[in-house]
Amino acid sequence: MRSLWLLPARRTASAPNPLVVNVSARHCHLSQETVEILFGPGYKLRPWKSLYQDGQFAAHESVTLIGPRSRVISNLRILGPCRSFNQVELAYTDAIALGFEIPLRLSGNIEATPGGMLMGPAGFFEMPKGVIRALRHVHMHPDDADFYAVKNGEDMRLKIGGPCGLTLEKLLVRVDKSFKLEVHIDTDEGNACNLQPETPCELTK
Amino acid sequence: MRSLWLLPARRTASAPNPLVVNVSARHCHLSQETVEILFGPGYKLRPWKSLYQDGQFAAHESVTLIGPRSRVISNLRILGPCRSFNQVELAYTDAIALGFEIPLRLSGNIEATPGGMLMGPAGFFEMPKGVIRALRHVHMHPDDADFYAVKNGEDMRLKIGGPCGLTLEKLLVRVDKSFKLEVHIDTDEGNACNLQPETPCELTK
Repeated sequence: MRSLWLLPARRTASAPNPLVVNVSARHCHLSQETVEILFGPGYKLRPWKSLYQDGQFAAHESVTLIGPRSRVISNLRILGPCRSFNQVELAYTDAIALGFEIPLRLSGNIEATPGGMLMGPAGFFEMPKGVIRALRHVHMHPDDADFYAVKNGEDMRLKIGGPCGLTLEKLLVRVDKSFKLEVHIDTDEGNACNLQPETPCELTK
Repeated sequence: MRSLWLLPARRTASAPNPLVVNVSARHCHLSQETVEILFGPGYKLRPWKSLYQDGQFAAHESVTLIGPRSRVISNLRILGPCRSFNQVELAYTDAIALGFEIPLRLSGNIEATPGGMLMGPAGFFEMPKGVIRALRHVHMHPDDADFYAVKNGEDMRLKIGGPCGLTLEKLLVRVDKSFKLEVHIDTDEGNACNLQPETPCELTK
């Protein structure tokens, strides 16, 4: 089930918290205003599955993304809760199929990125910007940052084992008291190394 | 143009031959018998573009691959010349989209692999086996093998730079007098690191 946006958690023995590496399939974050344009006035996202980070969820709702070459991605999952901006996160394989040229960006940094048309059951919304490939990153609590001797904004490396293993260089560190230790990679990265629940992963400075 | 099965060649300064890293998008190799079933009696593949390895080409012809969930991949490029067996090489992202569970195999090693239905303009052909993800590998001449101090069947590593760089571990070495130095990776691997013509690549033992 590699293509799910959330893979089963994988762990390695490591203090103070277990290492979890999850693959995010393509998805979007929307503002409440955009949700209402797509799904109707007053509409609220309905949580379907909880994500590993506290309070985050995959919604029952999904949208259709229409690309510049009139190709579409159906069932683009919405992650909640709503944010103050709209953002679509694709793998490069998705973007090439749709005909998007998308930049590699830290989530939330969407100035001067391409937009796209979203379609929901109640209407269309033309996003003026916000289609990106998300920069791979690791969420961690300050206790984890102390353990790995890294600071917010630094880079780490993730070595992924197995018969088609690879080492991801430049994994951005994001530290916050609300974060649980979790690496987020996309489907291109997860499929390149065939990441499975039993695949060994090692996070190093 | 990352999605082309053949990216522009990239080179680094290295004796005795330049290092070329190419991304193979999904494609198939067919026997002459299968070509005739799909395209008609006596049909010959028509070379469209030469590949980097001498004598190999992408054909004008493509087929439709029909997966177990009745999803299809259209325009699956045929590479020539014909071989003695039929083989479809997909990235894991392709296989997941189609509903295939495919193994990682060295090209040509297709015992106990899944099959699939191919459709051409003149007919269908039910491949009993041969759908794989190809093991990443590097072709090299014996002179290159001497330079890198490796032997046929050993593993090397390829470090790919850039803002989403990675190091591919376990790159299989294939040595033959007819080979030119060339790494073959698939679209998951190429897109995971956004391999571009200017991306620096380093092959090490």
